[in-house]
Amino acid sequence: MLDDVDLLVCGAGPVGCVVAERAATVLGWKVLVVDRRPHVAGNCHDSHAANGVLVHNYGPHYFRTDDEQLLRYLSRFADFVPANYEVRSQVRGELYPFPINLTTLERFFGRSLDTASAERLLAERRLPIANPTNSEEYVLSRVGRELYEAFYLNYTLKQWGVHPRALDPQVCGRVPVRLDRDARYVGHRFQVMPNGGFTKLFVRMLNHRNVRTLLNCDFSEVRTLIRPRRATVYCGPIDAYFDNRLGQLPYRSLRFDFVSHETEWRQPCVQINYPNDYGYTRSVEIKHVTGQRHPETVVSYETPTAEGEPFYPVPRRESAALYARYRELAEAETARNRVYFCGRLAQYRYFNTDEVIQEALACFQTIRRRCAAAPPASSPALPAA
Amino acid sequence: MLDDVDLLVCGAGPVGCVVAERAATVLGWKVLVVDRRPHVAGNCHDSHAANGVLVHNYGPHYFRTDDEQLLRYLSRFADFVPANYEVRSQVRGELYPFPINLTTLERFFGRSLDTASAERLLAERRLPIANPTNSEEYVLSRVGRELYEAFYLNYTLKQWGVHPRALDPQVCGRVPVRLDRDARYVGHRFQVMPNGGFTKLFVRMLNHRNVRTLLNCDFSEVRTLIRPRRATVYCGPIDAYFDNRLGQLPYRSLRFDFVSHETEWRQPCVQINYPNDYGYTRSVEIKHVTGQRHPETVVSYETPTAEGEPFYPVPRRESAALYARYRELAEAETARNRVYFCGRLAQYRYFNTDEVIQEALACFQTIRRRCAAAPPASSPALPAA
Ligand SMILES: Cc1cc2nc3c(=O)[nH]c(=O)nc-3n(C[C@H](O)[C@H](O)[C@H](O)COP(=O)(O)OP(=O)(O)OC[C@H]3O[C@@H](n4cnc5c(N)ncnc54)[C@H](O)[C@@H]3O)c2cc1C
Ligand SMILES: Cc1cc2nc3c(=O)[nH]c(=O)nc-3n(C[C@H](O)[C@H](O)[C@H](O)COP(=O)(O)OP(=O)(O)OC[C@H]3O[C@@H](n4cnc5c(N)ncnc54)[C@H](O)[C@@H]3O)c2cc1C
Repeated sequence: MLDDVDLLVCGAGPVGCVVAERAATVLGWKVLVVDRRPHVAGNCHDSHAANGVLVHNYGPHYFRTDDEQLLRYLSRFADFVPANYEVRSQVRGELYPFPINLTTLERFFGRSLDTASAERLLAERRLPIANPTNSEEYVLSRVGRELYEAFYLNYTLKQWGVHPRALDPQVCGRVPVRLDRDARYVGHRFQVMPNGGFTKLFVRMLNHRNVRTLLNCDFSEVRTLIRPRRATVYCGPIDAYFDNRLGQLPYRSLRFDFVSHETEWRQPCVQINYPNDYGYTRSVEIKHVTGQRHPETVVSYETPTAEGEPFYPVPRRESAALYARYRELAEAETARNRVYFCGRLAQYRYFNTDEVIQEALACFQTIRRRCAAAPPASSPALPAA
Repeated sequence: MLDDVDLLVCGAGPVGCVVAERAATVLGWKVLVVDRRPHVAGNCHDSHAANGVLVHNYGPHYFRTDDEQLLRYLSRFADFVPANYEVRSQVRGELYPFPINLTTLERFFGRSLDTASAERLLAERRLPIANPTNSEEYVLSRVGRELYEAFYLNYTLKQWGVHPRALDPQVCGRVPVRLDRDARYVGHRFQVMPNGGFTKLFVRMLNHRNVRTLLNCDFSEVRTLIRPRRATVYCGPIDAYFDNRLGQLPYRSLRFDFVSHETEWRQPCVQINYPNDYGYTRSVEIKHVTGQRHPETVVSYETPTAEGEPFYPVPRRESAALYARYRELAEAETARNRVYFCGRLAQYRYFNTDEVIQEALACFQTIRRRCAAAPPASSPALPAA
């Protein structure tokens, strides 16, 4: 079949799996998915620790979406079960609900509050910055200096390795401040997890008679050999595709330390943030949300690092500008060789899983439209160098 | 790398994984492993059921060996934990230790026994058949008619779909009769299971930078395309390799029905045989031996079938004769094209996992010896048809 591939996919993460499944099922295409890791599911990969507890290998993945149709599609490959994503932030030895809500404010400022008085309290504390140009200014203009220093400043320093002043406003802006008692991490309509884990879901997605999966294999080893008749979907880093010819795009990485405990639970909730203590930013006891019943548990400790697997695109103006130049190369490559760049690394953008799957479905539709029009390639669809 | 393969391996079962790992680690060869299933570990594959319980997907696999060096080798890829393989046989509504031991005999014949009196009791009951020519004669000559009819006759009928009279003596001969209280299923020195399961072990074995794994892909799709420089190891059915040109070798297959229970345990031991009741031969609660701690459980029911995945070579003279003719073709193929036939399907022989891994290690040594002598192939090592 290696001489008989319609669609070549680089990356067996959510994007690669979805595009492969759609092309195989809807169009009957023969698909080869290649991943340099020894497993599928990309950063959503989960597996069982030595004690049998299901853990998320690359950081906690809380699935949430407002898109019912998307959830219905994914439900073909897994049962989804409700999950409770609750995060607390440890400040001066106490655990506060996070994102900041009415309870956080009451306990932090030591007084009873309702929505109106909390709004007044924040209004008094906010710094009057009309057009924040960085993350520090943004947070100061939203919650004032005390909350900024207790909950945001050091967390951001640890997470990004740079001062909030050096980061775009939206980096900290992703986190809302709530004037009610809602203690959930996110507000989406569906907050659900695939029963049995993400890997199981994506393994099922690829378990199609038209799909072959090549693991532990870098794209560079096959790109000149496999000549797909229809298209290529590339989910790897966009700069690597072009041999970093314009320079390397910066990423922030993470180290995960997993610690097993012989007790059923270790934390009161799935995630605790440590803005001011320790070298790690957060501890995650994912069992709170996977739905697994188990007499033991595992907690992972997450330490941001400069080197390592590319996880988070660095949200700074320089990197956006560099990406824009790669984007131009990519567009030319799509036009010339039907190579589609899709996903977190290929679009150099932080996507949540639901969002990236929407991107993948849109990418599939584009390919379908263009390829229905154009005849299949008889000559190589990929450049030889 | 697909144009740069030293060793091509068909089958990611125990044999394929071991040969791939050895060739990659010891010789630094580049290896491509192909399996038509969507997972590695072959019939040793295990996975987590919906409720999180680790199950063996293709029947219970009790790892046992007398070979300490083999266990040391495998321990590089998993921690092994002691396991208690205890089997009972349900006869007239009661559970008896199986294989038959002193306790079985006492309860079955309703009298107290020691080794000497049990030996006399069996001696009185044995049928005087000097040279048994089939399984019925063999068992009658060992334990007499009552035990044969209660424990063996119907089990064998269900298992093989033919009367014990039509089967070679050694089919039932594999099961010992014990004149002590040893209730273990097997007598090997090491009775241990890989912590976390077999799949995890074999995934680790393949996680080597020289090894690529291509899943959901039949060997026939790559055999004319991938031209390994050094050798091919073929672990699939030997008849299929030669397009069944001499006829098909018969196999017995199995159907597995998995039933989840919301209680911690369902059976008193890992396996119960049902010689005389139900359509299934045995029920297996593998949690007894995997070492997993879990509040729920899963039991699998095994029903032998004529059609399905090839599991057990049928131990009859005709099939042995047909295999011998394929074996000749295989030897010529090894000499001509450096294709090595190794494993349960390729050697048409029931091996336990430890035995088949010994075969794999021996196969690797043969390849190593021959290939050190011969230069690598520059022309295709596989026939083009
Ligand atoms: C720490 C962390 C926490 C997250 N938390 C959440 C969350 O709570 N909720 C949520 O919805 N989302 C979360 N996400 C986001 C989620 O992981 C992504 O949306 C999703 O994984 C992106 O899918 P993808 O297919 O684009 O990329 P990936 O999942 O990164 O998959 C890309 C794949 O391509 C492979 N690849 C790359 N280059 C090559 C190459 N050259 N050759 C072969 N293969 C290659 C990689 O090995 C990888 O398997 C989180 C992400 C991280 C990093
Ligand atoms: C029901 C059952 C119970 C068992 N219980 C035990 C036990 O208790 N203890 C024990 O030690 N052993 C047990 N075994 C034996 C054990 O499963 C085998 O020893 C072992 O799996 C054999 O390894 P293998 O690599 O030769 O073959 P397999 O494990 O069968 O692997 C062969 C692989 O080759 C692949 N393949 C075949 N043809 C092709 C093709 N054309 N293209 C691509 N891929 C192909 C298959 O998909 C398979 O994954 C049991 C076996 C069975 C069936």
